[in-house]
Amino acid sequence: MPTDALFARWAQRVEIALERALPSAETAPQRLHAAMRHASLGGGKRMRPLLVYASGTLFDADEALLDPPAAAVELIHAYSLVHDDLPAMDDDDLRRGRPTVHIAFDEATAILAGDALQTRAFEILAAADAPAQLRVDWLRTLADASGAGGMCGGQALDIDATGRLQTLDELQRMHALKTGALIRAAVRLGALGGGASENELASLDMFATALGLAFQVRDDILDVESSSEKLGKTAGKDEAQAKSTYPALLGMPGAKAKLGELAEAMREALHGFGDRAEPLAALGRLAVERDH
Amino acid sequence: MPTDALFARWAQRVEIALERALPSAETAPQRLHAAMRHASLGGGKRMRPLLVYASGTLFDADEALLDPPAAAVELIHAYSLVHDDLPAMDDDDLRRGRPTVHIAFDEATAILAGDALQTRAFEILAAADAPAQLRVDWLRTLADASGAGGMCGGQALDIDATGRLQTLDELQRMHALKTGALIRAAVRLGALGGGASENELASLDMFATALGLAFQVRDDILDVESSSEKLGKTAGKDEAQAKSTYPALLGMPGAKAKLGELAEAMREALHGFGDRAEPLAALGRLAVERDH
Repeated sequence: MPTDALFARWAQRVEIALERALPSAETAPQRLHAAMRHASLGGGKRMRPLLVYASGTLFDADEALLDPPAAAVELIHAYSLVHDDLPAMDDDDLRRGRPTVHIAFDEATAILAGDALQTRAFEILAAADAPAQLRVDWLRTLADASGAGGMCGGQALDIDATGRLQTLDELQRMHALKTGALIRAAVRLGALGGGASENELASLDMFATALGLAFQVRDDILDVESSSEKLGKTAGKDEAQAKSTYPALLGMPGAKAKLGELAEAMREALHGFGDRAEPLAALGRLAVERDH
Repeated sequence: MPTDALFARWAQRVEIALERALPSAETAPQRLHAAMRHASLGGGKRMRPLLVYASGTLFDADEALLDPPAAAVELIHAYSLVHDDLPAMDDDDLRRGRPTVHIAFDEATAILAGDALQTRAFEILAAADAPAQLRVDWLRTLADASGAGGMCGGQALDIDATGRLQTLDELQRMHALKTGALIRAAVRLGALGGGASENELASLDMFATALGLAFQVRDDILDVESSSEKLGKTAGKDEAQAKSTYPALLGMPGAKAKLGELAEAMREALHGFGDRAEPLAALGRLAVERDH
C-alpha cells in the first residue's frame, strides 16, 4: 500500500480511537467535555500517532493493539498545546487554523481540559486490551517522556531562556525535551507493541531523535518563511519574541544544512530494517519537507 | 501502636517517598523543580496517603509496597491545588499557610509544575516495585478518579455552578467528584495493595464515600466558623463568592446533623472489619472533628 493511503488509514484509526476515548459533549460537565474534544479532534497532522503505527507495524503488531498508545500520545500532545497556548504561557489565539481553547471557551476551562486530557492518556493505556506488562512499559515510556524529565521540563527550559540568547547546545537540549521526548516516545510505544528487541529499540531511538530535531529545525525555518494562513498558527512569533532558533543561531543556510544532516542520520538509523521501514522513512521525509 | 504515632510514622514515610519522587531543585530546570517541591513537600494533612496506608495495612500489606500509591495520590492532590489556586480558577494567594505556587513563583511555572506533578504520579505507579497487574490496577484507579469522570469533572461542575444556587443533589454530585473521587481512590489503592476481595472493596468504598462527603461538609462549616490563620487558607470565601454550601442549603444545624449521619455511615461500613480497622475509623473521625 502506498504510504499516503496508509497514513490516511492510520489517521482515521486514531481519530476513531480519540472519539471513543473522549467524553461526550452532551453529558455534564458539557463545557469541559466540549473543550477536550475541541483540543483533540479533527485537526493536526497526527504525526505522533502515525509514528506509533509505523514503528509497531514494522514488527507486525496488530493495528488494533496500537490504537491505545496512538491515541494516548496524541492526547498528551493535545494537552500540552492547550496549556502552552494559555495567556500566561505563549498567549496564542490561533492553533490548527482554529481559535485556541482558552479563546473558544475560557481560561479556567482550558486549564482543566488540558489536565483532564493528560489524565485520559494514562487512563487509556492502563485500560488497554494488552498484557499488563506491556501496559506498564507503555505507561512508563509515556510518563517519562511527558513530565519534568521530558516535555514539561523542556517547556520550562524554554521559558527560562526567554529574553536571552541560548547557545546551540542549550537550544538542542531544550528541544530534545520539549518536542523530542514525545516523538521518541511515540516510536518506542509502537515498537514495544511489536515486541522489538533492545537493539532494534536503540536504532529506532536514533531515528526518532534525529526526527524530533529535524521537526524543530523545520518549524523554526517555517516560522520565518511561511505565513500564518499556511501554518494555521501565528507566523513570525519567534523573531517577535526574540527567541533563539536554528536560523538565528546558524543562519538560514546553516539551518537548512543541519536539516540535511538530520535527514541523512534518519536514513542511516533505519538502514538495517530494509524496505519494511518505508512508512517510518516517509514520516521522516515529511518532517523535513513539510510546508506547514 | 496508638493511631497518632502510626499516623506520624506514615506521614514521615510519604514525605520520604515524595522527596525521592521529586526532581532536585539544584538541577535544571530549577524553577520548575523548586515549584514542584514547594507544592508537594512539608505541608498538608496527608489525609489521602494516610488512607492508603490505613486501608492497605488492614490487609497486612507491606508499608513499603504502599509508598508508591501513597505518594502518587498526594501528587495528584498537590497538582490539583496548584491549578485550582490559579488566578483564572479560585485565585488564591495562600495555601497551607504559605504563598500559593503562582505567587511564590509565577503563573506559567505554576501551570507547568501542576502538569509535571500529575505526570509524576502516574510515573511512580508505573515504575513501582510491584507485580505488573497490581500496577495497572493502581493506575486505572488513580486515573479514573482524577480525570473528567472524577476530580477534574467535579472542578468543572463547580465552575459551571458559580453564581447560581445549586440544589443539594447537584452539590453532592459535584463534591462526590471534586474531592470524593480521590479519597475513594486512596482507600481503594491501599486495599488493592493488600489484595482485598470484591466484597471488602465494596465495604471500604462505602466508608470512603461517606468520608469524602463528611470531609466536604466539615470544610464548608469551617469556612464559616474558623479564621484564615487557623485554616492556612482564606476563610469566608464561600459566602463572598456566593457558593452553594451545606450550611447555606441546610442551615448550620442541618449541616452538623448531616455530619453526624455520615459519621454513623462510616462506622457501619467498617463494622465487619473489627478492631483492625481502627486506623481507618480514626481517620474518619478526624475528618469529622478537625478544626482546620
